[in-house]
Amino acid sequence: MKINKNYLKLKESYLFSDIAKRVNAVKATGVNDIIRLGIGDVTLPLPKVCTDAMVKASEEMAVKETFRGYGEEQGYAFLRDAIRDYYGRRGCRVESDEVFVSDGAKSDLGNILDIFDKDNKILVPDPVYPVYVDTNTMDGREIVYMNGSKENGFLPMPDEAVDADIIYICSPNNPTGAVYTRDMLKDWVSYAKKKGALILFDAAYEAFISVGEDPFLLTNVGRGYNKINSVGVQSPTEINAPRGCARIRKGNLSACADRIQRASLAVRDLKTEDLPRSIYEIEGARECAIEFNSFSKKAGFTGTRCGYTIVPKELVYEGASLNKMWLRRQTTKFNGVSYIIQRGAAAALSPEGEAQCSANIAYYLENARIIGEALESIGINYYGGKNSPYIWLECPDGRKSWDYFDYLLNEKRIVGTPGAGFGQCGEGFFRLTAFGSREDVKEACKRLID
Amino acid sequence: MKINKNYLKLKESYLFSDIAKRVNAVKATGVNDIIRLGIGDVTLPLPKVCTDAMVKASEEMAVKETFRGYGEEQGYAFLRDAIRDYYGRRGCRVESDEVFVSDGAKSDLGNILDIFDKDNKILVPDPVYPVYVDTNTMDGREIVYMNGSKENGFLPMPDEAVDADIIYICSPNNPTGAVYTRDMLKDWVSYAKKKGALILFDAAYEAFISVGEDPFLLTNVGRGYNKINSVGVQSPTEINAPRGCARIRKGNLSACADRIQRASLAVRDLKTEDLPRSIYEIEGARECAIEFNSFSKKAGFTGTRCGYTIVPKELVYEGASLNKMWLRRQTTKFNGVSYIIQRGAAAALSPEGEAQCSANIAYYLENARIIGEALESIGINYYGGKNSPYIWLECPDGRKSWDYFDYLLNEKRIVGTPGAGFGQCGEGFFRLTAFGSREDVKEACKRLID
Repeated sequence: MKINKNYLKLKESYLFSDIAKRVNAVKATGVNDIIRLGIGDVTLPLPKVCTDAMVKASEEMAVKETFRGYGEEQGYAFLRDAIRDYYGRRGCRVESDEVFVSDGAKSDLGNILDIFDKDNKILVPDPVYPVYVDTNTMDGREIVYMNGSKENGFLPMPDEAVDADIIYICSPNNPTGAVYTRDMLKDWVSYAKKKGALILFDAAYEAFISVGEDPFLLTNVGRGYNKINSVGVQSPTEINAPRGCARIRKGNLSACADRIQRASLAVRDLKTEDLPRSIYEIEGARECAIEFNSFSKKAGFTGTRCGYTIVPKELVYEGASLNKMWLRRQTTKFNGVSYIIQRGAAAALSPEGEAQCSANIAYYLENARIIGEALESIGINYYGGKNSPYIWLECPDGRKSWDYFDYLLNEKRIVGTPGAGFGQCGEGFFRLTAFGSREDVKEACKRLID
Repeated sequence: MKINKNYLKLKESYLFSDIAKRVNAVKATGVNDIIRLGIGDVTLPLPKVCTDAMVKASEEMAVKETFRGYGEEQGYAFLRDAIRDYYGRRGCRVESDEVFVSDGAKSDLGNILDIFDKDNKILVPDPVYPVYVDTNTMDGREIVYMNGSKENGFLPMPDEAVDADIIYICSPNNPTGAVYTRDMLKDWVSYAKKKGALILFDAAYEAFISVGEDPFLLTNVGRGYNKINSVGVQSPTEINAPRGCARIRKGNLSACADRIQRASLAVRDLKTEDLPRSIYEIEGARECAIEFNSFSKKAGFTGTRCGYTIVPKELVYEGASLNKMWLRRQTTKFNGVSYIIQRGAAAALSPEGEAQCSANIAYYLENARIIGEALESIGINYYGGKNSPYIWLECPDGRKSWDYFDYLLNEKRIVGTPGAGFGQCGEGFFRLTAFGSREDVKEACKRLID
């Protein structure tokens, strides 16, 4: 039996084990107040509306009349319809039979490659989520990198001189937190169509796009705090209300007026519609792009596992419908997501679910704002952090990523992630994340400024 | 962008849509008492111990202190250890880091091919679960069929003249229900080692192997009915107790003595240890076999989704460890199974879970026995049905599969699955399944005999 020798070309990643080693070495000296701002995982519990739905679904499975066996591989209609409507609310036409529910975007980003020839040139940004590179290396495809840098704000744009077949775009980006504008994505769609290429659009962090739409304010203040609270959302005091809203108490919304006014100003300055949450907000994208999305970061499903992929019927390459090919792939190599989990995911897209998800995202975004403010106050340049849980900072004094890691660990007792771990272009940069607790974030910022 | 043109070679399967069309045509004439014995899906609800565990796990996800984000891609230690012990109870050494938890055997059977070269010759039984053939066709691998027939009892054996690199074995088999004996599997292991080949052993139906071990009797009578009942198992009257036990009532176990005696006789005649439930019961298999298993048929998880794959560390091909390659594949293209579902799966392997699963399997096996008895009484030859939910019958009077389908549908108002749908060698055979209700099974048998 012969193995797939492409696996021998994979680089072993020691990034997180190296981090753990250095942290443990410091701990061994008796230091016990290290703050972790390197976490790429959510920490707030699931919205109650989701867990309630999963409790109910679990109980249904114990009763003959409501028990469910095999479901459709591409997901139950109730969830696919809810996802269609989620896109519809933002003006994107997506049909239910273009939605394929899965156990997560990471699975789909790897598995989608099944339907493509090995002989395709892959265009990948650097720095990058390592999965794009590794999954293509496993298949032996040629990879071309497009460099992210200070000059392009870590948002590389198409180069007409480069021929690519498959293009990865992640916006808001992991690890840089940078977000493509509408005009930039128009250029990418135009480039893809000209080259006969396909865009793989990773929208896993789309729910963090909130320019001018402080989700907490819009859902809780805009629609009436008492109303939302009545369907089970946590009260602002319970969730550590975001931004200027820490003072809100039930029946005392006026304290937030100042914040609302500032949010309105932000809307005017930045234009909500400038930062698409889906590639399908761009005309022509249905003819050249597959979108990957997930409940992981939107609804805290990193350990609950549910994502989805959208394959528009307009996608036809070499005479073949990618929608039909992916359906065939999924019906052959996949058996669908647990009924219980699909119920939880659908609940996240209900009005109550949206409000609860927004409250959690607002909490993380406020963490990001606090970190950004601290960095600004000490003159450190950074990207992301405004529509993303990631803050990508330029290591001060021309330091290298790992040197800055050691400095932060030893001098400030803060752990982050060296940018060099995400590709050559990440050298000299450093990733902090907003997924910690408010208390930790505040203490870390105090140490940074001191 | 170039597509994977191997997909164009896939045969469209119209088997189940053709069945639906013919059934609907009969229904349209006003017939409304059609009985479905073609279902390949469980129908009994999940063991209560599993749903209780999932309710509890869902509730944990709503609380910050017990919330879980990303878990290990290969599964939580609590479940991998439980699976290790499940094998250990049957005398098979499996280590926790050889167990990879997934969303189901179908996913793993497809995805495992990632780590093998395209240039491998695949040996597949005929008739066969179509996924083995389709997943290899998608990669462009050469497939060689080994014929199942009346002569070999649908248990094809190795042919030294055939060189194969990867060998699929499914035992108990879908669709034939045939089960390989220990001696037969020894021959397969010996052949694989001689050829440097790898066996992919699909054990999805292993829990149905119950020769001499009526699981209901062993767990409920042997260990004391009241004890089991106290941990939540359904009482025999609730579950339609299997075989001769329909008369059991709490405190009245003596009615079953006759059945126990017959079970003991069966043990003596057939020897429990003759039918392995795992390929690792065979010496040397750890050096040449990967095993796929699932909670779908054992615990009714077809819609709940959890399975696992065992990749022993002894598996080294061309100097590469398949265990390490699969770990790399799964950490790159998969993010693990939901914490909630893993808790449910672990519960199925607890003593209470085992008892409840056994009760459900005993119910299906009793259905199979009733169907087999009916077929025998009218002189129809069949395979399986004794350690499998599948009854594979020879169409009487030399009928073809679809002709017999039409006969059963039109004359008896019974739906099954034409054997020809599972491969050339299935022509002239027909699959019935034991997953229906007792009532339906009895009525269908009455009609068969009439």
